[in-house]
Amino acid sequence: MIDPADDLKAIYTAAIDAVDPFNAVKSHLLMQGRKLALVDRGAGIASYDLSAYERIFIVGAGKATAPMASAVETILGDRITGGCICVKYGYTRRLGRIETIEAAHPVPDENGVRAAARIMDVLHGARENDLVISLISGGGSALLPYPSGSITLDEKRATTQLLLKSGASIHEINAVRKHLSRVKGGNMARAAYPATVINLMISDVVGDRMDVIASGPFVPDNSRFADGLAIIEKYSLRPSVPASVIDCLERGASGLEDENPGGGSGIFKNVRNLIVASNIMACEAARAEAIKRGYNSLILSSLVEGDTADAAFWHSRIAKEIVQSGNPVPPPACIISGGETTVRVKGGGLGGRNMEFALQSAFFIDGVDNVLVASIGTDGSDGPTDAAGACARGSTVRTASGLGLSVRDYLDRNDSYHFFERLGDLIITGPTNTNVMDIRVILAWE
Amino acid sequence: MIDPADDLKAIYTAAIDAVDPFNAVKSHLLMQGRKLALVDRGAGIASYDLSAYERIFIVGAGKATAPMASAVETILGDRITGGCICVKYGYTRRLGRIETIEAAHPVPDENGVRAAARIMDVLHGARENDLVISLISGGGSALLPYPSGSITLDEKRATTQLLLKSGASIHEINAVRKHLSRVKGGNMARAAYPATVINLMISDVVGDRMDVIASGPFVPDNSRFADGLAIIEKYSLRPSVPASVIDCLERGASGLEDENPGGGSGIFKNVRNLIVASNIMACEAARAEAIKRGYNSLILSSLVEGDTADAAFWHSRIAKEIVQSGNPVPPPACIISGGETTVRVKGGGLGGRNMEFALQSAFFIDGVDNVLVASIGTDGSDGPTDAAGACARGSTVRTASGLGLSVRDYLDRNDSYHFFERLGDLIITGPTNTNVMDIRVILAWE
Repeated sequence: MIDPADDLKAIYTAAIDAVDPFNAVKSHLLMQGRKLALVDRGAGIASYDLSAYERIFIVGAGKATAPMASAVETILGDRITGGCICVKYGYTRRLGRIETIEAAHPVPDENGVRAAARIMDVLHGARENDLVISLISGGGSALLPYPSGSITLDEKRATTQLLLKSGASIHEINAVRKHLSRVKGGNMARAAYPATVINLMISDVVGDRMDVIASGPFVPDNSRFADGLAIIEKYSLRPSVPASVIDCLERGASGLEDENPGGGSGIFKNVRNLIVASNIMACEAARAEAIKRGYNSLILSSLVEGDTADAAFWHSRIAKEIVQSGNPVPPPACIISGGETTVRVKGGGLGGRNMEFALQSAFFIDGVDNVLVASIGTDGSDGPTDAAGACARGSTVRTASGLGLSVRDYLDRNDSYHFFERLGDLIITGPTNTNVMDIRVILAWE
Repeated sequence: MIDPADDLKAIYTAAIDAVDPFNAVKSHLLMQGRKLALVDRGAGIASYDLSAYERIFIVGAGKATAPMASAVETILGDRITGGCICVKYGYTRRLGRIETIEAAHPVPDENGVRAAARIMDVLHGARENDLVISLISGGGSALLPYPSGSITLDEKRATTQLLLKSGASIHEINAVRKHLSRVKGGNMARAAYPATVINLMISDVVGDRMDVIASGPFVPDNSRFADGLAIIEKYSLRPSVPASVIDCLERGASGLEDENPGGGSGIFKNVRNLIVASNIMACEAARAEAIKRGYNSLILSSLVEGDTADAAFWHSRIAKEIVQSGNPVPPPACIISGGETTVRVKGGGLGGRNMEFALQSAFFIDGVDNVLVASIGTDGSDGPTDAAGACARGSTVRTASGLGLSVRDYLDRNDSYHFFERLGDLIITGPTNTNVMDIRVILAWE
């Protein structure tokens, strides 16, 4: 029997479980006798004969990296030689042989620099017969700040701010940043060479581009110092960008520094990059649970971006179509999407993009019976709140009216948290210790 | 075998054929012996024993009404007593017993008033044992202008303009307008009472609300004169609205005129309203053709509205997801949507919302191989052009570059027609004589 509220909870719980960092590592990395098997759903299983490796080092950075490391310890136990990971303050786990350094996120601090230096030491120390397992998750970029040359953290931050304001695209910004860092744009792979590397990633970026996740420390980078410089010129930033940054780019462009290792480089010969948790994996787990519960279920797209109100409008139109014509699938229907939207904040209320999505949707599905639309941040925290998201129904506007609440007013104030708190439709998961952005669920039944 | 260009053409052709006005009437109205069968996919088949009716009158208005009338003539032949339809100048067909009056669209003229008066005469003349078949299609509202009281066409038009500028919602505007007309808001049903009425409609409105299609001449209207007056007051329009309009609303509100017939009225006892062509029907025909050609096919929603660029972004993200993960359906995939978007015109170029959609999509799917996205106006005319729409591919931006064309520039100028003309990717169907808004098709293959 269809019990929408119960089903919704089971569906988003299945999604979050599938991208749990501990589970994600365990389901992609396992011992088969004396071999370590790496399960790549696309490419098949790769086998690493552990007797071929003298030492095994673990490195990594990100908010979810401690439970990832914990999983690796349960798999490899005392085969692990040592290593170092960097996590956000408070995001630690009890680990055996792996050192943990805590640092600041999202604004980097000197502890992050210390961690990056320590990790680079580990990588430089790795030799041909060593295996390095890297564990990257959301926040990994900010947690491994390691500016090139004489650039300070503040100067690097200022440069990013200038680029953001200039109208440069995110690809242009990354092209510059990858040349101001000693770890990004494949530089960790260069440091580890010629050791064998398995880099496991939890993707928190739309589209799962491996060169974008934590700025691709183990991924080839074909951009050049001269490209970075050209972007600075294109947006007329030379007068405002710190001299140390210009100096770094010019030294590189003149051949005084090595370019980042590109796709043709032998450095990546022994490197395997694998995403072990991503938004589409969360969506697929949600869909599997929905099917188990009797729903006709589809994943719309895991690439949802842009304005939250637009996304709510689209999802609501699909919800209505299910009710009106049974398309794209007949009820009981469960449509899932993933990605991350943005909110144009106008008011001073309390909320986040997921609750805002639900509030906008309440408006768009007003009066459509037997439908609910929910949005959930997989990290369990939507905006600066203790809720992961919220759920809107065709009856939400009416129910709110009965309580004397106006959806319009709450939207104008961006106060979605207090709205759904009053309606009892907040979704509370508690911290999940992972992050693959958001999932949205439409349920429609008869 | 998948041949995307050929398949696309077959798919949109199937969609347009399904909503052809002649076909649409023929597939919903047919003779079974001496009975006229009305096929309502939702409610089943209703049977009208023609021997029970003394006379059969045909009325109607709209751009597609002449071929609808032609279909009725092939079905009923000389059982038709007579009647009158109003079509746009040039949109006539050779008919036998049904008079055709041509009038202006979209800005009404006196010929429209003459046609409305003539049609109301036919309806008033119909008696209990008569059957009236009404044929309504897009433009029907503008082609049947029949202001109440002493209101002139210009005064009614001015009132609509004032309401549009005031920020009143479309429902508020319609509530006023339905009280300034002698035919809308159920007034044609009142005129025909107690004759039996079959009102066949081609829907050109998102959501297919029958009270919205041509302002619902045969559909109950529960709004009241006082509501119309309240809306005028709400937007402080009393000083600017023509005196004749205020006078009409005030007379009605004081009980000097009959209110429009509402849902509780016996007037609709013998009235049957049926949509014979709509956007979702076009989408369903497109989907059936896609499935026949081997595609995994879904209808996303027939309720697509809002900004064209947003719609293009959404469709493109779904196209990408098909290629990346095989969701919502694996390739070969055909995703269909319907509805009507709007374009924020910035430039002075030549285009329409369908070609603009394709141009925006070209940008969003740039580099995604084995994907095309197309948008087609079912009337065969997108904006003021001879094209119905256009088709974008993952290679379109690259191909354009090779020709020295920049998608950005053409977007800035809203010059989608000339862009796709250069690329040979215009979709030309010629006039289709129907209109159920637009359909969009995503094809993805391996």
